[in-house]
Amino acid sequence: MSISNTPPSGFRDFTPKDASARFGLIQTIVRVYRSFGFEPIMTSAVEDLAVLTGKGGGENEKLIFKILKRGDKLTEASAAGSGELADLGLRFDLTLPLARFYSHYGGTLPKPFKVFQIGPVWRAERAQKGRYREFYQCDVDILGCEDWMAEVEVIEAISSALGTLGISSPEILINDRRILFAMLDDAKVPHEKRIPACIWLDKLDKMDPEDVWAGLYEEIGRDSASLLRLALDESREGTDGLARLCALPGLAEPVERLSRILQSLKVLLKGPAVRFEPCLVRGLDYYTGSVFEFRHPSLGSSLAGGGRYDRLVEKFGGQPVACCGGSIGFERLMLILQETAQQAGADGPQACVTVFSDELRERSLDLAQQLRAKGISVDVYPGAGKLKNQFKYADSKNAAYALVVGPDELASGLVKAKNLKTG
Amino acid sequence: MSISNTPPSGFRDFTPKDASARFGLIQTIVRVYRSFGFEPIMTSAVEDLAVLTGKGGGENEKLIFKILKRGDKLTEASAAGSGELADLGLRFDLTLPLARFYSHYGGTLPKPFKVFQIGPVWRAERAQKGRYREFYQCDVDILGCEDWMAEVEVIEAISSALGTLGISSPEILINDRRILFAMLDDAKVPHEKRIPACIWLDKLDKMDPEDVWAGLYEEIGRDSASLLRLALDESREGTDGLARLCALPGLAEPVERLSRILQSLKVLLKGPAVRFEPCLVRGLDYYTGSVFEFRHPSLGSSLAGGGRYDRLVEKFGGQPVACCGGSIGFERLMLILQETAQQAGADGPQACVTVFSDELRERSLDLAQQLRAKGISVDVYPGAGKLKNQFKYADSKNAAYALVVGPDELASGLVKAKNLKTG
Repeated sequence: MSISNTPPSGFRDFTPKDASARFGLIQTIVRVYRSFGFEPIMTSAVEDLAVLTGKGGGENEKLIFKILKRGDKLTEASAAGSGELADLGLRFDLTLPLARFYSHYGGTLPKPFKVFQIGPVWRAERAQKGRYREFYQCDVDILGCEDWMAEVEVIEAISSALGTLGISSPEILINDRRILFAMLDDAKVPHEKRIPACIWLDKLDKMDPEDVWAGLYEEIGRDSASLLRLALDESREGTDGLARLCALPGLAEPVERLSRILQSLKVLLKGPAVRFEPCLVRGLDYYTGSVFEFRHPSLGSSLAGGGRYDRLVEKFGGQPVACCGGSIGFERLMLILQETAQQAGADGPQACVTVFSDELRERSLDLAQQLRAKGISVDVYPGAGKLKNQFKYADSKNAAYALVVGPDELASGLVKAKNLKTG
Repeated sequence: MSISNTPPSGFRDFTPKDASARFGLIQTIVRVYRSFGFEPIMTSAVEDLAVLTGKGGGENEKLIFKILKRGDKLTEASAAGSGELADLGLRFDLTLPLARFYSHYGGTLPKPFKVFQIGPVWRAERAQKGRYREFYQCDVDILGCEDWMAEVEVIEAISSALGTLGISSPEILINDRRILFAMLDDAKVPHEKRIPACIWLDKLDKMDPEDVWAGLYEEIGRDSASLLRLALDESREGTDGLARLCALPGLAEPVERLSRILQSLKVLLKGPAVRFEPCLVRGLDYYTGSVFEFRHPSLGSSLAGGGRYDRLVEKFGGQPVACCGGSIGFERLMLILQETAQQAGADGPQACVTVFSDELRERSLDLAQQLRAKGISVDVYPGAGKLKNQFKYADSKNAAYALVVGPDELASGLVKAKNLKTG
């Protein structure tokens, strides 16, 4: 029986054209992140299961690819019947590994620590169009900094990366979870109804608002829902709307912080619109304060997002560390760039050296070596066959020139170059 | 209880200095591979278990990290007692995924297909010093080409990548498995003793040769062992030694091929020594012909290796495809470069802008933005604190200059720059 030659469901391979485009994107993002003084780290793809669970990863914790124990440990676990069969798992994001990393290395790193990490993460999602089980994230974080400039720099770096890639007009939404919670309290929404209410509010930009509010009438009662709706509308009225929220208990600091972030970003970012959006929640439970999202007109979901997670590092031991970070959704970025055709094509070698005859192979290899030494990328046809087929090969590699080194050329000392672009 | 903040045993994190060095290495290798006309692909980290097993991966097949089934399928498998608990696994090399990839996409790719892939692979090795469970490989292959120029180009590309990285004098050993098998036959070694004999011969450069031959006397008998030893010694005598092997049954083609490869490489490669080594076997069963290895004086094991695997692609369906490829052991390369101190240091931002006071934050952010627009990489201290601490931060980031934007500077229009390298 022959085996399937496709990757498992939800996983993907990338042909040279796509792989080149992905490399190009990553290089651009790395260059921009570095230009802000962020430094790269790499963490392991595999984590102890205890690292991945119970840290506020929300729904993602249910989607962990678990790795089977090995050897005696597996035999024991199987024999026990109800034993834990797995001890390791594939990371589902880059933030948990970063928090673990910082808990270990924090003492030896610059303070604050500006860091980026780009790499694959894995989630056992139900396979469906546009949703993958292996996908890349491009995270940028500042650890050990409670100042609001951390938020500004993270958002500016992401915005700059997107701008450099030609995505000039995403909309940036910012909130602080504490603001929404205070508004819920003020509207007399009972504590146990906070999360259900947030889940409804999160749908406001995804479905008909009237249907959402109908749901909320059911969930939290008509009085609370009406109060909340009015308060949300008022809070969106320019800078005054946000400023007035200062009056709610505990909001002096969050509102001041958010106002300064918004003010700074409005000055710094020329392209994207930045606005306060009190209903922005984001799914991960590890966020403790400000949250933000980049939206793009051609996407139903966010293109990038992040927030402040001041209580995550301490879960791996040690003192609390103020942290803020964001992540570009690499696959969504690829999707937009493909749609707008701004994706770089696969770049072929500059020239392809053909092989004239069996005896002249070394002359072709030698010419290629000389050209490479001059910085020119050069393919050699591996074998001696009809020149016509070799020209076809050179063309399929997108080479600009096919070079011929035959007896005439060797006699004259001049290599013949066939321009494959103009024919 | 606080959780461990280190990666699982055998896995690693990389701090900015190490991560930068790894990125730099990868970029160099990519540049060299591309300069030969090789194109990048990416395959999924996770494969169906059926793809990973029974394809000639040798010992590596025993080291697969298996991924637990999920949902109903796991419940069923557990209930069955002896059911297969895993359905997926992490790839243990890049060659099997490439063969699967080519079986699927071959029809749409250039012929021959020159390809490279760089990425992590995973093996559940017993954890020990210098042996990792997650490590990178840098593969370069030519598929759909039975010509011996494929071997030459793969070896030249690897040699060029190593040379560019400053590793100028590895020794390159080449063999063809069929040659060793024919010599075993000629020495009357019974068929069933082939593999045990090869395992012994493989140890000739790792332990005292006399101990190896003592082992072989036991294994294949004194007569066969003596004949074999003599034949091996004779075969290593210059080009004549190899040429004489033509006389053995079935060796006309392999010896001719090997001779031409050796001849070409001796002309093309100025640095490394290239030689025929009849005992070179390499562990993977999927090799069908020539095999090669790059050795470095400071390593007990090989730095790179590969060979011809003409029967692998057809295991995924379709026609046989002639293939030849090699792989640089990335971790061993890192080790050598660290020892010879040729590793690039972490490159910090060119400048770090300090923040003079709370009111002047935006002026610092604005200056940083202007400098970045001019292509200068600029860090900003995220927060307003003592300048002394900010200078210390700039120094810890390896920045060349710390820039000050205070009231005096704003009045004069001149930013103050403190050179951190000269003090």
